[in-house]
Amino acid sequence: MRSSRIAYDVTVGRWPPNARERLESAALDLFVENGYEETTVAQIADRAGMNRATFFRHFADKREVLFGGEEVLGGLFADAITAAPTAATLSECLQAALAAAAAAMTTQQRAKAAQRVLVLAVNADVQERGLLKHARIAKSVTAALRERGNDELTARLGAEMVMLAFSVAFERWMSAKDDEPFTPYAEAALSDLQTRAADLVLPSRLSA
Amino acid sequence: MRSSRIAYDVTVGRWPPNARERLESAALDLFVENGYEETTVAQIADRAGMNRATFFRHFADKREVLFGGEEVLGGLFADAITAAPTAATLSECLQAALAAAAAAMTTQQRAKAAQRVLVLAVNADVQERGLLKHARIAKSVTAALRERGNDELTARLGAEMVMLAFSVAFERWMSAKDDEPFTPYAEAALSDLQTRAADLVLPSRLSA
Repeated sequence: MRSSRIAYDVTVGRWPPNARERLESAALDLFVENGYEETTVAQIADRAGMNRATFFRHFADKREVLFGGEEVLGGLFADAITAAPTAATLSECLQAALAAAAAAMTTQQRAKAAQRVLVLAVNADVQERGLLKHARIAKSVTAALRERGNDELTARLGAEMVMLAFSVAFERWMSAKDDEPFTPYAEAALSDLQTRAADLVLPSRLSA
Repeated sequence: MRSSRIAYDVTVGRWPPNARERLESAALDLFVENGYEETTVAQIADRAGMNRATFFRHFADKREVLFGGEEVLGGLFADAITAAPTAATLSECLQAALAAAAAAMTTQQRAKAAQRVLVLAVNADVQERGLLKHARIAKSVTAALRERGNDELTARLGAEMVMLAFSVAFERWMSAKDDEPFTPYAEAALSDLQTRAADLVLPSRLSA
């Protein structure tokens, strides 16, 4: 479909997605069709109607094309925490972070995410890269919470809470119907975890 | 020092450590001396007074030699949770897990850990493997908590708490004097995090 790469897409009423998004879509399609290991960067670029040089302007290597969303997510979390009102509690900051994630969790992203889940399930080295991205997002959330004056441990615990709530929300959302919005899943996952966090607090603290 | 491999070690009053431990020590020494990438499995085996085949009986690849302790740690955490009294609360299970970790955190292990920190700091792919191990330990803790009847979310949250408390304790312990025991650091880290977990719980839950 190289000839269509600058065509107006009448089905969604807009110009086709930009180079980065097209490379991601092409890569995911090929990984699912032919296998991650079997797919080359040249094939991805070709499917997207570009050349290898363009691919490497957007992604450092083949694995990175799977994790563009992670960079976006880390930024959304951190920006939302930074932008929260000065008086916002820790809980409110975590809620703001998860609410902001919804911007990246569209129906289109959900379809891509389903492909990624399939690819990650059978490729250990891709899983490892995913964990590295996960760790980096947690660090950026920790930094954003620290900047608000939370101490180091509170910030790290808050970041783990955001990451776990996001994972739980993501899993539930992926199991739901296609057109469900992400936000209610994010809110429910965080609330469910906050309920359970009471069991982590020492009894003397709860009654204080 | 191949000739000394079955010698009685008069300085510590015992036979030298077993093959697995000797391979670990040899690998860490070489990684620190010559660099991780530059060190071959053959060199590690040679330094330990063994051959490559023996290395591969103990470790799947060069990276794995850095993470033998992680397997041990996951087992210690899970076994301690499983062995906790039936009436033990979630907090008591987490305390038991961290207390059990002390068995692996000896002065000898601390010296190895310091070498590992140096190697991991400059090798991204080794960091990725470390995160995979970390994720596996968290899964085994989650499974052990689930088996005690905790629900899925409580178990996952509890596992993240154990992992974070261990990380914090480990960092503090590594910054302390050489001969400090690990247990007080583990207890303090968990307690410090449990205090902060109160901020994660919704206000209505705390006063309930």
